[in-house]
Amino acid sequence: VLSAGIVGATGYTGIELVGLIEVHPGAQLAFAASSSHAGETLGRVAPGAPEIKLVSSGDLHLEGVDVLFLCLPHGASAEYAERALSAGVRVIDLSADFRLREEGLYPQWYGAEHRAPWLLDQAVYGLTEIYRAELAGAKLVANPGCYPTSVLLGLHPLFRAGLVPAWIIVDAKSGVSGAGRKPKQSTHFVEVAGNLKPYKVGRVHRHVPEMEQILADWSDPPPPLTFVPHLVPAPRGLLSTIYVPLSGSWSERRVRAAYEEIYEGEPFLLLLPPGEAATLAHVNYSNRCAIGWTLSEGALVITAAIDNLLKGASGQAVQNMNVMFGLEETVGLGNWP
Amino acid sequence: VLSAGIVGATGYTGIELVGLIEVHPGAQLAFAASSSHAGETLGRVAPGAPEIKLVSSGDLHLEGVDVLFLCLPHGASAEYAERALSAGVRVIDLSADFRLREEGLYPQWYGAEHRAPWLLDQAVYGLTEIYRAELAGAKLVANPGCYPTSVLLGLHPLFRAGLVPAWIIVDAKSGVSGAGRKPKQSTHFVEVAGNLKPYKVGRVHRHVPEMEQILADWSDPPPPLTFVPHLVPAPRGLLSTIYVPLSGSWSERRVRAAYEEIYEGEPFLLLLPPGEAATLAHVNYSNRCAIGWTLSEGALVITAAIDNLLKGASGQAVQNMNVMFGLEETVGLGNWP
Amino acid sequence: VLSAGIVGATGYTGIELVGLIEVHPGAQLAFAASSSHAGETLGRVAPGAPEIKLVSSGDLHLEGVDVLFLCLPHGASAEYAERALSAGVRVIDLSADFRLREEGLYPQWYGAEHRAPWLLDQAVYGLTEIYRAELAGAKLVANPGCYPTSVLLGLHPLFRAGLVPAWIIVDAKSGVSGAGRKPKQSTHFVEVAGNLKPYKVGRVHRHVPEMEQILADWSDPPPPLTFVPHLVPAPRGLLSTIYVPLSGSWSERRVRAAYEEIYEGEPFLLLLPPGEAATLAHVNYSNRCAIGWTLSEGALVITAAIDNLLKGASGQAVQNMNVMFGLEETVGLGNWP
Amino acid sequence: VLSAGIVGATGYTGIELVGLIEVHPGAQLAFAASSSHAGETLGRVAPGAPEIKLVSSGDLHLEGVDVLFLCLPHGASAEYAERALSAGVRVIDLSADFRLREEGLYPQWYGAEHRAPWLLDQAVYGLTEIYRAELAGAKLVANPGCYPTSVLLGLHPLFRAGLVPAWIIVDAKSGVSGAGRKPKQSTHFVEVAGNLKPYKVGRVHRHVPEMEQILADWSDPPPPLTFVPHLVPAPRGLLSTIYVPLSGSWSERRVRAAYEEIYEGEPFLLLLPPGEAATLAHVNYSNRCAIGWTLSEGALVITAAIDNLLKGASGQAVQNMNVMFGLEETVGLGNWP
Repeated sequence: VLSAGIVGATGYTGIELVGLIEVHPGAQLAFAASSSHAGETLGRVAPGAPEIKLVSSGDLHLEGVDVLFLCLPHGASAEYAERALSAGVRVIDLSADFRLREEGLYPQWYGAEHRAPWLLDQAVYGLTEIYRAELAGAKLVANPGCYPTSVLLGLHPLFRAGLVPAWIIVDAKSGVSGAGRKPKQSTHFVEVAGNLKPYKVGRVHRHVPEMEQILADWSDPPPPLTFVPHLVPAPRGLLSTIYVPLSGSWSERRVRAAYEEIYEGEPFLLLLPPGEAATLAHVNYSNRCAIGWTLSEGALVITAAIDNLLKGASGQAVQNMNVMFGLEETVGLGNWP
Repeated sequence: VLSAGIVGATGYTGIELVGLIEVHPGAQLAFAASSSHAGETLGRVAPGAPEIKLVSSGDLHLEGVDVLFLCLPHGASAEYAERALSAGVRVIDLSADFRLREEGLYPQWYGAEHRAPWLLDQAVYGLTEIYRAELAGAKLVANPGCYPTSVLLGLHPLFRAGLVPAWIIVDAKSGVSGAGRKPKQSTHFVEVAGNLKPYKVGRVHRHVPEMEQILADWSDPPPPLTFVPHLVPAPRGLLSTIYVPLSGSWSERRVRAAYEEIYEGEPFLLLLPPGEAATLAHVNYSNRCAIGWTLSEGALVITAAIDNLLKGASGQAVQNMNVMFGLEETVGLGNWP
Repeated sequence: VLSAGIVGATGYTGIELVGLIEVHPGAQLAFAASSSHAGETLGRVAPGAPEIKLVSSGDLHLEGVDVLFLCLPHGASAEYAERALSAGVRVIDLSADFRLREEGLYPQWYGAEHRAPWLLDQAVYGLTEIYRAELAGAKLVANPGCYPTSVLLGLHPLFRAGLVPAWIIVDAKSGVSGAGRKPKQSTHFVEVAGNLKPYKVGRVHRHVPEMEQILADWSDPPPPLTFVPHLVPAPRGLLSTIYVPLSGSWSERRVRAAYEEIYEGEPFLLLLPPGEAATLAHVNYSNRCAIGWTLSEGALVITAAIDNLLKGASGQAVQNMNVMFGLEETVGLGNWP
Repeated sequence: VLSAGIVGATGYTGIELVGLIEVHPGAQLAFAASSSHAGETLGRVAPGAPEIKLVSSGDLHLEGVDVLFLCLPHGASAEYAERALSAGVRVIDLSADFRLREEGLYPQWYGAEHRAPWLLDQAVYGLTEIYRAELAGAKLVANPGCYPTSVLLGLHPLFRAGLVPAWIIVDAKSGVSGAGRKPKQSTHFVEVAGNLKPYKVGRVHRHVPEMEQILADWSDPPPPLTFVPHLVPAPRGLLSTIYVPLSGSWSERRVRAAYEEIYEGEPFLLLLPPGEAATLAHVNYSNRCAIGWTLSEGALVITAAIDNLLKGASGQAVQNMNVMFGLEETVGLGNWP
């Protein structure tokens, strides 16, 4: 049984992860740490969460720990990662700190120097379905952002089949838990309920370089990307509607083959019949990614839905842990056929 | 045309009030003041609100102003009220500062000394339907709390008809705008959506002494009151379900007569047929109070619904302004037959 | 004072329209008709609506009526329109029956023969800001669909300025009242709450030919259009996020000039500063259309928001009535500066 | 491994139950039957549900089946129950058909003759925490209603400790899934969102006789009960706020002892510290019942929350199955410490 520590247990991804580890048959919680609520139980901080005692983030005992999950704001993970790796503990980082391989990108998009750039090389990008082989031996995993998870899973089959889009437009919609647990004016119930709000329109969101880095792995330079995220009045779930211009040779048959070939047998991929669209109902409270596609006149429209806290964060983190430690990939993630 | 100033224009009651004054045919806005957003337009601070320029709360020009609305947190109103009254400007205070007549109650429930206790005597409690006569000449009006508005309108006919309850249980439910616009953990969309939360259970909420003071006016000492407010996942609206034990002589006929007699012809009272219950749909986005009652075995159940931002705050404030200045009571409040 | 009749008063657009006419200073309700609820009051059918008596749709008295609003499902309007026009009553039809000018299009998209094709010629498309001149004398107005209203208002300035897009992608999001008041599995609260659902993906929605017809008026043939509507968990409001590829000569200055020139002084158009996005909060419960645009690398992103029941239906219908009868365009629509 | 059949798999309780059985380590699905969707997969009918093939309700194969769950509307269960019992299959009925022991009550409250009254005697009321002993050997279990589950678990400790209330007032609030999956006007998203609606006020709801029957087991005649359910804008979850007049001897100490004694060690009971209230957040998506209580002046206020689809229906059904067949009570129900 793996021993797993969690730092940053009182944010939404941390709370979700504690719950997952608590019911995981192959792992147990070494500790759940919090800088703001040490000494309290998690259930008191977040009603409905397990009644485990929170320890201080400043005083972690890493002996005997197999894997450390970092559920921290970006910028705060690097130090913890370094300490854990030195102590021989493998790390799954849910922040953005180890996602951008090129050192110069981090300061450009996150407005600060990276605190442990020498670790960037060994970080494996934890989009499980695509980087499964590299994840098996990884010591440091950069768990992907929620938007990139949906967009990259939605597009990957096209690139693999040589159907490289000339332009990619992503109209993404996220539930409010994606904005974090710290209260802000923009996450006040009254501001969100009955509202719909585009934000960071165009190429402004920090997930843009993350997506482009992976797209460039598949086809360099990557196609131009237009990305508009929206905040929607739902607590969780994320839907990306992706628009790609059709080029002559993209028949329904080729597109279909592209998707079916790659996602056949993937336990967490729900590939919908052609013409059907993915919805949050397909995926919420599960680790699934639902993918639909429709060939329309002049355009291919792809819909990709995930639960942003599960496949978009803590669920995929557990999936990665399973792969890293040779457990069955679906264990602890409640999948059904 | 009345000239109306508003202090505290960027909270929910302030925003609502600016909108009401902007379309009121008998009033116009002298200024809308804000301590935090002076110099910006209200529409920038609160999308959808009028694009009027906010002035500083610290630098009000009261000349020519007929009425000053105070949409401030409790404790902050007293000084503004005093200054305005000295300048001959009538005041409608939407905070709790002038609601409790007895000087000792304020420190007990609000944890601070009252800053202008000498004004308490002249404050008129602005529950329009009940204190209409006193409001006509009032210089200083204490606009009622949202919960008391619904509860007192729901119970008043009984007391007037001599049907004094032996016990009053109020199970009240409020939309989230009642908790204010300042973001808190408890008003985060994710904490509220899909949730239901009782709070300040029993006799703890600050609206308890406000209700008891008025109940004592009607029957001294007032009946015991048990009050449990709940936060519900709706942006606005307030419903009080009131339980009263039946005593022998309370026939359906007497109860019905009590309600019909008092509320007949009231423009903002929607009295439902016996056995039907008030809902938020009856009142939201209007200044109405809907009242229903059901005589059940052993108990009378009264339901009273209001829009907490209109009849529960800014709408009633305008209704009071209309009465104070001799305008038609419904003007600017969009009532229909 | 105009005398206005309403047929189909118990759907969402009908209910909204009755409320608007009830408070309109220049119009009064001749009757509100319903096929299913004749004899009841509207307030009983829809709590919160005015307590007016509903008459039977089968037995309308048109004498003295100036304008008849038809809030019926498509296919049902044609007969009423014909009868009213014969009786000299002007008609504003909120259904789709008179929106498609070309006779062959109706059967193709609505699956039935048109019942009064000889009237199509005289119908004026009621997108007020664009067809104001034609509306002034119109006898029969085809009130636009909600999606087309937002999309066409969002795109019109570009075409007027000669900036004709090479491709138009519309990712549209609608609140649930757009789906009608009749209960369906897809509008059940539990299926919608917390969900997000793309539907009629590509070029399948009936609003596609309506948009293309108008686009062709502006530039023939119209640019290719990809249209994906989504159902969102909000009761009302509609947001269209529109993606258009940039071509060389489209400078920020030219785009800005295009929007400012046309929408300057429009009372219901809220043009946001460059880089800011329209949200439902800007428009809900008002007749406004909010428009934002952002010039990004390679793309122009336009956001256009309306309240689907007001500017997207009943509000625009009243705006059209005002224009048709020479009233001030904003009267009865509660606009503020 | 138990073999479990489910009839009525496409309602909300059926869908939930299929999901639970699919991940239950000690049970497997024999079949999921539907009268309306036979031949389709459940995942097509209800996105997000398992992709299992639905069989016809009219053609069940009971050989080898250990337990049959009936997720049918009341009135429809009796026949299935009889057939299953004859075939030696144990039955857990989630409808109301076997809840009322006294034969005359069913026609009185459900408006029809009972179809298998001779089975009423052997039915065990499946409120697991209270009737655990009887459930162990039961052949036919009447799974409790959602409201009674919360109310009875909230009150049981008082009766057990001899603290019998003089009057019981229940103000209950339910999420919309409690109203069933069949679309109705009252469950339309637009009618529910932003609304709050009391219904069946007083002693009218069919769960009243169910509660009184059990209360009479504890103290005969039972105290008078006033019960007002409310529909709230949440997809799932149920909260009962229970008001009980205090009598002289009810000290904080005695009440506390009453609750702690009985619920100590109960895996699904979350007893909150005195003065704290239960919320939906404590219980949603779990099989827990959260209970809080506050001693106020003159009244004891108890709050009891459950997920209406889990502890209020399908979760408790699985809990009962576990007890009936000697499995560990929590297995398959994802409980954590």
